[in-house]
Amino acid sequence: MSLVWFNGRLIDGPLPLEAHDRGLLLGDGLFETLLVVNRAALWLHMHLARLEGSANELGIGFDRDAADAAVADLLDQASEVHHVLRLTLTRGPGARGLAGVGGEPTLIATLDAFDAGLMLQPVAMVTASVRRNPASPASRLKTLSYIDNIAAAREAKARGVEEALMLNTRGAAASASIANLFLVKGRTLITPGRDQGILTGVTRQALLAAAHRAGFETKERVVKPAELLTADGVFLTNSLRLIRPVKSLDGKPVGKADLSPLADVLCAAARLQCGRDPRLL
Amino acid sequence: MSLVWFNGRLIDGPLPLEAHDRGLLLGDGLFETLLVVNRAALWLHMHLARLEGSANELGIGFDRDAADAAVADLLDQASEVHHVLRLTLTRGPGARGLAGVGGEPTLIATLDAFDAGLMLQPVAMVTASVRRNPASPASRLKTLSYIDNIAAAREAKARGVEEALMLNTRGAAASASIANLFLVKGRTLITPGRDQGILTGVTRQALLAAAHRAGFETKERVVKPAELLTADGVFLTNSLRLIRPVKSLDGKPVGKADLSPLADVLCAAARLQCGRDPRLL
Repeated sequence: MSLVWFNGRLIDGPLPLEAHDRGLLLGDGLFETLLVVNRAALWLHMHLARLEGSANELGIGFDRDAADAAVADLLDQASEVHHVLRLTLTRGPGARGLAGVGGEPTLIATLDAFDAGLMLQPVAMVTASVRRNPASPASRLKTLSYIDNIAAAREAKARGVEEALMLNTRGAAASASIANLFLVKGRTLITPGRDQGILTGVTRQALLAAAHRAGFETKERVVKPAELLTADGVFLTNSLRLIRPVKSLDGKPVGKADLSPLADVLCAAARLQCGRDPRLL
Repeated sequence: MSLVWFNGRLIDGPLPLEAHDRGLLLGDGLFETLLVVNRAALWLHMHLARLEGSANELGIGFDRDAADAAVADLLDQASEVHHVLRLTLTRGPGARGLAGVGGEPTLIATLDAFDAGLMLQPVAMVTASVRRNPASPASRLKTLSYIDNIAAAREAKARGVEEALMLNTRGAAASASIANLFLVKGRTLITPGRDQGILTGVTRQALLAAAHRAGFETKERVVKPAELLTADGVFLTNSLRLIRPVKSLDGKPVGKADLSPLADVLCAAARLQCGRDPRLL
């Protein structure tokens, strides 16, 4: 199934997008991707808060009531157990000129069935040549300008693995192409800090808070790439796959720490009964 | 006037864009912007060659015949003296997953009247905080992922000037938000090299070749920001405004070299009779 909501209503057929919409022309917009389980969108308020904060930073109008209506209209139609709900906000059609004072923003939402496995599926990674730029909004915000992440993902795919390790322009480890990066050392979780050219993922934030409450030590800091090979374990987080262990980096094995305690912590924080749902584990 | 060509034909009304088109969802595509003067698109073959080369690099299908048809269909309708023709190529609708093996690419072309002055209008610049990343396809290729350029242009506008000087992540001068950067020292033209996180503009390439033929020395190299304040002159090039002198940087005056010999060289190379057309000068 695939449902589309466009500027206020569910529609059939293609998007009636204005030809000068800056989302399409210039990647001038933002998006959020949410996992829907049993008609509930996971961490909905955190996603909407991030979208609103990023829109304010970029000067794009954000109508929270419209976003709430889009989510409600789509969840109302959800049929399968799992879906992915995507919100796309663009600056809308604009006159020429990059600075872009312009028209009304465009809000699009889609709901698609999601039948991939969600958690704990091991991932092989290679280090991508594309680097993340801490002095760039495209690295920090979830904008429609995603070409660097795409290039990194294509490098990984060309080399036969699922994900790319993206370094930043200073040579430190930053993230994967669509996920945040964590290292496990004993009861300590280490993840690249906010100043490292990373997108601060909602699952990253939820896990940091929940793990801290559960007695883990959490550190946000500079991570050297070589640390991935000496840690007890390395894992990725994102909104659709939650937690996935990294099994290798550039063909070298990565530590096999047991991540199930962290998965339990995350599932509890998300009020997901992961252990009882075979689709979730 | 505004004309829109979509996947093979001129259309009225909004774009019938598939909701999962990766151009809109992920900035996964490319564009070219061409100046049309008297029904001829300036440096058309260079623009199409760049688009094709970039599409090959990103693994996006490019149909040269379709692009030629789009350009011909639009130029056939051109009425005013000056237009801007934009070609937009996306990877098309795709399944989930960044690496994006997928559907047919989407080709969109638009023709709009362009009534801005074209040449030699002085520009004030400020140095933007957003930096260009030499290890990023978004800096090198004219992709739909333009948010860094937008952020730089917005910084300039917020500070009351027309353009932003973008440094690269190594601290060297790279370009403006929508134009390449040149320094003039006597009969020498200096411009940041291809490895500096720049988009190699068509006008940049045309001017380098034409100026060299006309007896100027041309150098592509690392440019320190402080050099802009000691050069005889600084100017910007792009496809719509051709050559514009920089009059100030961060409030400090910039040298006032006479750029008219370079404008003449560029006009001759473009077979534009700039001196006889008051709209062009």
